[in-house]
Amino acid sequence: MNLTGELLIGGKSRKGTNGEIRGENPATGEVLEPAFGGATKADVEEAAALAFDAFAGYRALPYETRATFLEAIAEHIEALGDDLIVRVMAETGLPRPRLEGERARTTGQLRLFASVLRDGGFLEARVDPAMPDRKPLPRPDLRLRNVPLGPVAVFGASNFPLAFSVAGGDTASALAAGCPVIVKAHPAHPGTSELVGRAIQAAVASVGLHPGVFSMIHDSGYEVSQALVADPRVKAAGFTGSRRGGLALLAIAQGRPEPIPFYAEMSSINPVILLPGALKARAEKIAPDFVAALTLGAGQFCTNPGLILAIDGPELDAFVEAAGKAVEAAPASVMLTPGICKAFAHGVAALTEAKEVTTVARGVPGPDGSHTGRAALFSVAAADFLANPRLHEEVFGAASVVVRAKDEAELAKVIDALEGQLTIAVHLEEADHALTAALLPALELKAGRILVNGFGTGVEVAPAMVHGGPFPATSDGRATSVGTLAIARFLRPVSYQNLPEALLPAELKTENPLGIARRVDGKVKLG
Amino acid sequence: MNLTGELLIGGKSRKGTNGEIRGENPATGEVLEPAFGGATKADVEEAAALAFDAFAGYRALPYETRATFLEAIAEHIEALGDDLIVRVMAETGLPRPRLEGERARTTGQLRLFASVLRDGGFLEARVDPAMPDRKPLPRPDLRLRNVPLGPVAVFGASNFPLAFSVAGGDTASALAAGCPVIVKAHPAHPGTSELVGRAIQAAVASVGLHPGVFSMIHDSGYEVSQALVADPRVKAAGFTGSRRGGLALLAIAQGRPEPIPFYAEMSSINPVILLPGALKARAEKIAPDFVAALTLGAGQFCTNPGLILAIDGPELDAFVEAAGKAVEAAPASVMLTPGICKAFAHGVAALTEAKEVTTVARGVPGPDGSHTGRAALFSVAAADFLANPRLHEEVFGAASVVVRAKDEAELAKVIDALEGQLTIAVHLEEADHALTAALLPALELKAGRILVNGFGTGVEVAPAMVHGGPFPATSDGRATSVGTLAIARFLRPVSYQNLPEALLPAELKTENPLGIARRVDGKVKLG
Repeated sequence: MNLTGELLIGGKSRKGTNGEIRGENPATGEVLEPAFGGATKADVEEAAALAFDAFAGYRALPYETRATFLEAIAEHIEALGDDLIVRVMAETGLPRPRLEGERARTTGQLRLFASVLRDGGFLEARVDPAMPDRKPLPRPDLRLRNVPLGPVAVFGASNFPLAFSVAGGDTASALAAGCPVIVKAHPAHPGTSELVGRAIQAAVASVGLHPGVFSMIHDSGYEVSQALVADPRVKAAGFTGSRRGGLALLAIAQGRPEPIPFYAEMSSINPVILLPGALKARAEKIAPDFVAALTLGAGQFCTNPGLILAIDGPELDAFVEAAGKAVEAAPASVMLTPGICKAFAHGVAALTEAKEVTTVARGVPGPDGSHTGRAALFSVAAADFLANPRLHEEVFGAASVVVRAKDEAELAKVIDALEGQLTIAVHLEEADHALTAALLPALELKAGRILVNGFGTGVEVAPAMVHGGPFPATSDGRATSVGTLAIARFLRPVSYQNLPEALLPAELKTENPLGIARRVDGKVKLG
Repeated sequence: MNLTGELLIGGKSRKGTNGEIRGENPATGEVLEPAFGGATKADVEEAAALAFDAFAGYRALPYETRATFLEAIAEHIEALGDDLIVRVMAETGLPRPRLEGERARTTGQLRLFASVLRDGGFLEARVDPAMPDRKPLPRPDLRLRNVPLGPVAVFGASNFPLAFSVAGGDTASALAAGCPVIVKAHPAHPGTSELVGRAIQAAVASVGLHPGVFSMIHDSGYEVSQALVADPRVKAAGFTGSRRGGLALLAIAQGRPEPIPFYAEMSSINPVILLPGALKARAEKIAPDFVAALTLGAGQFCTNPGLILAIDGPELDAFVEAAGKAVEAAPASVMLTPGICKAFAHGVAALTEAKEVTTVARGVPGPDGSHTGRAALFSVAAADFLANPRLHEEVFGAASVVVRAKDEAELAKVIDALEGQLTIAVHLEEADHALTAALLPALELKAGRILVNGFGTGVEVAPAMVHGGPFPATSDGRATSVGTLAIARFLRPVSYQNLPEALLPAELKTENPLGIARRVDGKVKLG
């Protein structure tokens, strides 16, 4: 597969002229070919104009055609074969089985959104028939459906170079919603981005769509990303990355003459609560499972378990001892980029030096000068955790802090003091049910997903998934970026009053030609 | 009914000490008794603490109890009898039949949300059963439902002293969602607010709820409103009012350490498009209907038709002539407040003086010194309208501008240049279907509701209603403030993974004890 280092603007490609981006193998330090040219503001301008131009036609396509398009993207990604896996390995240091699984997830979620389009539930179709004889006033005919917002900007993540990147969940859900997409490729995997971007371009061509439906640009700094969010033709954006980066772009999205929704998934420490019954029954079983989740993928997951909450006592001691041993045995892992590796070391150093924090264990150190992360486990008294908000901040990588509460009341206080989270895990036995029931309302205020006897890593792509959560886990706690509900981010409702039958969209016509479930006069009717 | 001028903080009431607010009869200039004391920041603090305290218990109530509570509010409002209508008339100058209708709408929408609670669709319940044998990895049990955000601040509107005020749509939908409510009463109808607020307080007591579920404060300036939106325990806000006021509070909501959703309904000129076939068939029939909609309630509706768009020609001349005659016959109407009256006069003067704008007609002038609005109809060439963005701004009251396009292409250009709107009305005949179909995608980008052969005034409270629209019609075009979908503003989804059956909320238990419609494995199942 020949990489050109070009920007993909609509159906065309050309070398960007604004600086240079290079992939780098984090395992070897090797700088990879080719060089990728950064986009200019004029490139953003052109991509946005094309996307806006494509929008009316794209959204008007039959939903079946849109579904076929998503399936075609999946097929074109599969057709890249091993060339794709080899390039992603080189750019990210992630192992082959993980990347093969991630590819399957990526194509699976494209196909899942095809099924969402065929189901039609995302339209939220509602029909309130006219009541011409109602007193004192007749009721008009009212029908409602969701329509797409317009062109969407997507900022891929470094840690999921396939499933949260160029053809990841944001792109799949935006395209499913009927929105053209402009991707700003992540600089840590530009070659992976080009391969996947060209697969989307090929799918656009094979289905015969307007080429403006998809563009992809590189950015050698920040100004192109900022210009993309500021462009008046861009009507929403999806972002996965750091809190600082997310908040900077959010401010631009909110400050535009016409503000737009900006969905940033940013920061989460994913507390794991070990309840007394669970600790008593299986502290030493939970410990290695926890460390496996902590160190998986060098801890580079948004849902990495960065915090353990439990009531102090000998069972917690046993857990900490067992977890410490497992951490000490954990090999150093190559991290995604030198920058991420440096930030991890910095975060670990800050915890190590904090006087109220005890270092329980460190993993095996990596070779000098390597971009490897060395796992770390810390411990702190709940009172100190409550007093120091800096201990609540995410350290991206395999680092976790055990917070020792003196009793249930202090445990509840710690939960109340948490910021918003993507996930909260609870380990429990039947003896813990009453305590769990008492804690649940507080947990529901803090997290998008509450899970039992497991860890947040491994996010199922399914209708009932929420990968989101209150600020700062995301910038909009009403949304999810994984699962079929992710499509809702790029839609808004429109109501039609007394529109003649001939002019109604198919999903709202009286005879329901699409056969979708709708609310008729407030009641759900199957298609 | 004895008015005390007090703040309602939880179940108690006391006189505010921060300045004074007085109702004023806009028809007579009479300053009304009693004086209402403004709240301090300490009052906000106390109301927020009570609301947060009430939240966990309130949201945990059976939905049936919440429904009963909403019905009890409706009953307590009805029990106020004519005292309420008399006070609203005195404070607003609005006529009795309008206010009796508005009261019915207010109690009707409380009862509608009771039915929403019994239906359960607002929960968006989803169940994805576990697949323990799936390869390569088993699927966990996943279940999703919506949960309430937390305490909600409500800023009532001046122009709907009942239906968009203390017990209006924002309050009804937030309470239905499971959110305690703190109302900042509109200073133009403080006595009305006290009467309705005490009805809600009585309903809280009669159902035996935590008194923090409802509070109401007065604000003699802006600082209390700002403190309310900034309070960390307030998790969302609903607002209906001016663009300036909405944007100021929106900035506070976005700038908090934890930003919150802020739903502001602000500004809309509600274009009415007269297509050639309709103009030809019935220009002189549409004209008086238009002027009736324009002057209804002194034009003080968010959905007032402030813009007419049509292709120039003799049929449009006939429409303008007929409309002008109707405007000239329109009597002056008392406006809600001296401030609104002054702003209307100012807006009309600016249009009158704009050199590219022709004054077609003015209504009958009111008595000197009265707070009356005099209807106004203007005309402008589309090219001039396109060149001058100030002509796109809302003039709140009975003023409208006819925009004359030279052809279909220029009409489309004017539509593309519009800001976001609550409504766009299209007058059409069968001969106009093709043109309407061509325009619809552009209209869908600009408005929350598209209506045919009518005017936007008269907003049906129904499942398929959208009273919302792209910025600046509202601050969040994904939302509606009228109709059953308004409840979605105060909810967010939570996913439960492998939660034991015993701990699942009723709506997600496997046997579906509430009998609600749910998505099971992605497919809608009726209850």
